[in-house]
Amino acid sequence: MEDNIVPAVPIYHQQSTTIDRWAEIPPIFDELKAKARAEGLWNLFMPPSDHDDEFFTSVGLTNVEYAPIAELMGRISFASEVFNCMAPDTGNFEVLHRYGTREQKQRFMVPLRDGETRSAFLMTEPEVASSDARNIRTQIRRDGGDYVINGRKWWSSGAGHPRCDFFIVMGKTDPDASAYRQQSMILVPRDTPGVTLVRHLPVFGYDHAPHGHFEVLLEDVRVPAENMLLGEGRGFEIAQGRLGPGRIHHTMRNIATMEVALEKMCRRLRSRQTFGKTIAEHSVWEERIARARCDIEMSRLLCLKAAHMMDTVGNKAARAEIAMIKIAAPRLAQRIVDEAIQAHGGGGVSDDFGLAELWANTRIVRLTDGPDEVHERQLSRLELAKYDDAKEPGS
Amino acid sequence: MEDNIVPAVPIYHQQSTTIDRWAEIPPIFDELKAKARAEGLWNLFMPPSDHDDEFFTSVGLTNVEYAPIAELMGRISFASEVFNCMAPDTGNFEVLHRYGTREQKQRFMVPLRDGETRSAFLMTEPEVASSDARNIRTQIRRDGGDYVINGRKWWSSGAGHPRCDFFIVMGKTDPDASAYRQQSMILVPRDTPGVTLVRHLPVFGYDHAPHGHFEVLLEDVRVPAENMLLGEGRGFEIAQGRLGPGRIHHTMRNIATMEVALEKMCRRLRSRQTFGKTIAEHSVWEERIARARCDIEMSRLLCLKAAHMMDTVGNKAARAEIAMIKIAAPRLAQRIVDEAIQAHGGGGVSDDFGLAELWANTRIVRLTDGPDEVHERQLSRLELAKYDDAKEPGS
Amino acid sequence: MEDNIVPAVPIYHQQSTTIDRWAEIPPIFDELKAKARAEGLWNLFMPPSDHDDEFFTSVGLTNVEYAPIAELMGRISFASEVFNCMAPDTGNFEVLHRYGTREQKQRFMVPLRDGETRSAFLMTEPEVASSDARNIRTQIRRDGGDYVINGRKWWSSGAGHPRCDFFIVMGKTDPDASAYRQQSMILVPRDTPGVTLVRHLPVFGYDHAPHGHFEVLLEDVRVPAENMLLGEGRGFEIAQGRLGPGRIHHTMRNIATMEVALEKMCRRLRSRQTFGKTIAEHSVWEERIARARCDIEMSRLLCLKAAHMMDTVGNKAARAEIAMIKIAAPRLAQRIVDEAIQAHGGGGVSDDFGLAELWANTRIVRLTDGPDEVHERQLSRLELAKYDDAKEPGS
Amino acid sequence: MEDNIVPAVPIYHQQSTTIDRWAEIPPIFDELKAKARAEGLWNLFMPPSDHDDEFFTSVGLTNVEYAPIAELMGRISFASEVFNCMAPDTGNFEVLHRYGTREQKQRFMVPLRDGETRSAFLMTEPEVASSDARNIRTQIRRDGGDYVINGRKWWSSGAGHPRCDFFIVMGKTDPDASAYRQQSMILVPRDTPGVTLVRHLPVFGYDHAPHGHFEVLLEDVRVPAENMLLGEGRGFEIAQGRLGPGRIHHTMRNIATMEVALEKMCRRLRSRQTFGKTIAEHSVWEERIARARCDIEMSRLLCLKAAHMMDTVGNKAARAEIAMIKIAAPRLAQRIVDEAIQAHGGGGVSDDFGLAELWANTRIVRLTDGPDEVHERQLSRLELAKYDDAKEPGS
Repeated sequence: MEDNIVPAVPIYHQQSTTIDRWAEIPPIFDELKAKARAEGLWNLFMPPSDHDDEFFTSVGLTNVEYAPIAELMGRISFASEVFNCMAPDTGNFEVLHRYGTREQKQRFMVPLRDGETRSAFLMTEPEVASSDARNIRTQIRRDGGDYVINGRKWWSSGAGHPRCDFFIVMGKTDPDASAYRQQSMILVPRDTPGVTLVRHLPVFGYDHAPHGHFEVLLEDVRVPAENMLLGEGRGFEIAQGRLGPGRIHHTMRNIATMEVALEKMCRRLRSRQTFGKTIAEHSVWEERIARARCDIEMSRLLCLKAAHMMDTVGNKAARAEIAMIKIAAPRLAQRIVDEAIQAHGGGGVSDDFGLAELWANTRIVRLTDGPDEVHERQLSRLELAKYDDAKEPGS
Repeated sequence: MEDNIVPAVPIYHQQSTTIDRWAEIPPIFDELKAKARAEGLWNLFMPPSDHDDEFFTSVGLTNVEYAPIAELMGRISFASEVFNCMAPDTGNFEVLHRYGTREQKQRFMVPLRDGETRSAFLMTEPEVASSDARNIRTQIRRDGGDYVINGRKWWSSGAGHPRCDFFIVMGKTDPDASAYRQQSMILVPRDTPGVTLVRHLPVFGYDHAPHGHFEVLLEDVRVPAENMLLGEGRGFEIAQGRLGPGRIHHTMRNIATMEVALEKMCRRLRSRQTFGKTIAEHSVWEERIARARCDIEMSRLLCLKAAHMMDTVGNKAARAEIAMIKIAAPRLAQRIVDEAIQAHGGGGVSDDFGLAELWANTRIVRLTDGPDEVHERQLSRLELAKYDDAKEPGS
Repeated sequence: MEDNIVPAVPIYHQQSTTIDRWAEIPPIFDELKAKARAEGLWNLFMPPSDHDDEFFTSVGLTNVEYAPIAELMGRISFASEVFNCMAPDTGNFEVLHRYGTREQKQRFMVPLRDGETRSAFLMTEPEVASSDARNIRTQIRRDGGDYVINGRKWWSSGAGHPRCDFFIVMGKTDPDASAYRQQSMILVPRDTPGVTLVRHLPVFGYDHAPHGHFEVLLEDVRVPAENMLLGEGRGFEIAQGRLGPGRIHHTMRNIATMEVALEKMCRRLRSRQTFGKTIAEHSVWEERIARARCDIEMSRLLCLKAAHMMDTVGNKAARAEIAMIKIAAPRLAQRIVDEAIQAHGGGGVSDDFGLAELWANTRIVRLTDGPDEVHERQLSRLELAKYDDAKEPGS
Repeated sequence: MEDNIVPAVPIYHQQSTTIDRWAEIPPIFDELKAKARAEGLWNLFMPPSDHDDEFFTSVGLTNVEYAPIAELMGRISFASEVFNCMAPDTGNFEVLHRYGTREQKQRFMVPLRDGETRSAFLMTEPEVASSDARNIRTQIRRDGGDYVINGRKWWSSGAGHPRCDFFIVMGKTDPDASAYRQQSMILVPRDTPGVTLVRHLPVFGYDHAPHGHFEVLLEDVRVPAENMLLGEGRGFEIAQGRLGPGRIHHTMRNIATMEVALEKMCRRLRSRQTFGKTIAEHSVWEERIARARCDIEMSRLLCLKAAHMMDTVGNKAARAEIAMIKIAAPRLAQRIVDEAIQAHGGGGVSDDFGLAELWANTRIVRLTDGPDEVHERQLSRLELAKYDDAKEPGS
């Protein structure tokens, strides 16, 4: 990171100004990527598993071991991808690794593994509240040896990336099945006829190119039946398995964000004077700095605990902890970045310190993979279930 | 508003997509402006005063009467300007009206009055914490019949507007004077040699064209001594007088923002279902809606009280209340817009509902005209001063 | 207040230490009460109404006029009662005045009017969540010319006061009626056989003698049918009418509490030094003082608006505003008193500055007359109803 | 805990009602204590150290090992003392163990070790802001072979316990020394002439008998020079060493408090219905439960990290983490207990569920051993110091 990535940041940004950011990749980026791969710093995110096979063998880092690496990479916007550790490919890779057939792996996973392609995950829809995933409407209809897909997705991150190869699409195969058996996941090559990138979606005015977020229209998109993942009606099952490790990655990036914001805040406050002393000496800032440090430490420890539980007792037994880090860290990060902005005055809302974009990127985490409220609902239900069959004390 | 402005919103945005937004104005805008002027709905912001003269007579609205109009206009981004009631021209106009010489009024104020020109106010500097205004470094040096100005300003809002005619610049005439007598304000035509618009400053990725915010370099900018406002060393005095009415305008726009956000939130929550009922029926949203309504009502009433005090006892006696609305309303608005975003899921952070830009515009209000902290300092000092010479009870 | 009540405070507290606080009243208290009555400062809380009759004529203060008086009285714990303006008698008086028969007024209201008796309002029950008032279980069964009452109430404030004469009891007359027609209110003399004061309930360790809060058991309590208020099934109707003015009174007392707490906080912070300056000069306290002042002003204005609406358009049209003050003011007061405690260090949690008891008294306001959540629910429903039949914009 | 302590709780409370709580101890308490000692569950709090000697050998639990025990004991108000692990004796014991002479240990530490005596720590003073410990005024003047002490202390916890044997008193030996060398600590037997317990201090109406908090007057209190701890001017040095482990104990008790409050909240919310469902199903409570669970987990992990650092790198290197748990946990605990109170309605503020007293006990933690603000100051300084000699990036 220090020897190669940090010095490349200004070059990356400089090169970005001279290219079509939606169609080309800054050359420095591919140089770094080649270097990372050559050194074996590649696909670090996959923990050891009994799914390892001819197509993939984990480098062997547990979630706990990977977490601090995710934090380090999370300090710089493009670093995860240099090491082929970027969302949503990590999640898609894991789905293929765990549930894919030999043929699916060969076709979709191997190029992803090698960093030759990228992918997208099409879940959320503009017409329904996707926080209740049962609402998802996209139709996946069997038609002979094919499935035909119709629907409209949005916030399909990476769908417009110049190297995006395929989508994993969630949709309804059987509206008459029980609530959690209606949905399936299917693999759709991006260049399939009927796939249209309707438009790009900005985030607080930022475009996140070349990755970006898209609205995608699926009209009579026909793929072979072999592209179904795991089997009809198993979409929820896959979704559950997919979420855990991604949460660790996202959360450790949140923590990186908080550390970056706190560092910038401290440096700024030390460098400026008001009313006869540095702003850092005003106690209103002492309180904010102290609370930021507390919240960062607590978030990191909670994330490491969740990672440890995933490593030792599995994703299912860790689901309360996984929900916790999704709830706690983004909210704390949002406040810390907001205070870093306040510490920078006008500089904070401009692009000079990167804080405004950091804020935008942090804000969306409270919405991606489900809004806070749905995780709070899930976590509270786990908590309340501890008292099943319990009487109120004294009653 | 309902008959003319609201229907023009989509036209305005459509026309904006076809022009160079930094150089041209959407035609619909000038049509609306001409109509407003013809109907006498023009310069509504200036309360009756004993400064009225041949150049300007107030239409006679008090601050209390103007406040709800400012709220109505504040619901739509470009509406204030249609009625020639936009910042920073309103503040600059008031400075000229109150402190300007006959010649200054003729040259600078009259075209502003008529909506032919726009202006900027150059106060904040990138190199110092401007929240302590004594830090301002720009030099204004007397040289024969001229003043020569050197310095760097930023967040000069409107400095790049195609119709921007002049700046009011705050800077130091006498570094050896007592702390509050060092600064002066001077009028600088934008086309004066030595004035350079260094760059545009975005706000969370939004550019606010054609108004915008700029970094402005002043290198040996020479203006006639007659351009000095009120006299050397009187910059703080002018700044104090300038702030009051602008606060009312800004705050009423904050309130408009909160109302717009709450309306969008309610409509959205009613239109979506999760877990068997509309999201509006989930009590976590009931709490947020209820608190938003409370906070909006309280903010509006506080703003109207401040306006009433300005109308009846004057800006100086109202300074505590003026500080209060600057502290309270933007913070509450930030939370309400944030919750409206949360209610919209991904739609909230995109440009589809205008909420992301609204958030950005709301966030900067906690920094413009001084950050929260400096107003809190001022207000707490007024509060503590009530107990001068007081003993602790019981001591 | 200044000439008579304030100087009496230490005497009141001194006398309280020498008597049985649950059975006797400090002599100074009755002296003040006699003086207040002699000067016509008596029953000030009743606004002009068309219910005035031979038993009572309002002194003529509107809610807006009474509100600042309620604030002034609210600064000292026993002051409201000196002027015969104390809860729950004010609400009970109003119920009798509005809905009582001639005989009910003669027997119950006249001694209350004259300050000879006190009363209690028995609504909340320990066995159900009374925030949904439909849960109330107490039975009121017709039996010939009588009603027979069975149930258990708690938080019956004032039920143990040495002068408490009667209760208004809410209970169920018809469990088969529609949800809002099951409950009735009935007058029960305290000395009726079957009434038992089971125990006293402390509030954070404070007893609130001689007023206090009680658990009351009602076992086969038999009262004449004439004691029914307004008619069977009209309990909710009476409850609605009863709440408005009480909210104003409670809220203005909350505001008094905030003012008292802020004053104590300021005085304390000015009187102490840490790290080379008074604590008041530490900016973390500047922020708290400033926000407290903002919140106090906003709360008072909101309360005055609610009072004004009650005076001009009536309690029903003012129900949103009445809900707002119930939601906003106690929560803000809780924070301000908590910060005042923090400012006093150990002194804050002891009885030396009265802040700990003030905190306890403030905390209960978020529960009395329904918890925050039920008012937030009601207010959000009024807000959402504005958009009935509305389409989401853009849909 | 489950077999002996939990079943004893009702007996303890029942016995407490029949004795003079300030003079006697409930018999069950001494029975439990004898049993704990017999089983070797005694003085568990002292980690292994190189100070072990003939007077004391640690049972060998590290801070990390002791922390969960402290949490378990913290669930029940009197449990810590059963195992001779109660504050402030733990801190006083550690001071004697680390810094005491042979004679001081023999006289003061041995009976404390054996649970025969209790002690108090006299630091805070009513006349100055003790959060800046340099303010402490109590005089300790050398007079021949004695020291003579004059001063007034308060919040001297346990000073009135029937078994209290001695105080450790902090006071000024040399007002002319440098700021952190003026203060000393000295051992004062409680029965020394000149020691007066002026009064008892309640906490939100609770008395905390038989432990309690006292104001103590020291008038010409004469003790032999041998009672000085470590040497004149070393009070700050001792205070620093004393604080670390106590923070772990206090924080783990805070965490116990949060767990107890959350459990009571969940049970209560499940047992009550409003508006057609249990209150636990209202999403406003889902959010509170979820956040409580997150905050509890994060607090516990942070405390364990601090304990681990103390065990491995020492109290001095762990001082940032020790400050963090003092800042974070009590504030979170305060909110959780407050929400548990809200969940219980009127029951929450009474003594029926123990929540009101729990709240009071939690609130004081934000003041004991220094208010939040002083720890935030210290922590922010450690944070800012990371950037010494640093330039602002980009400057």
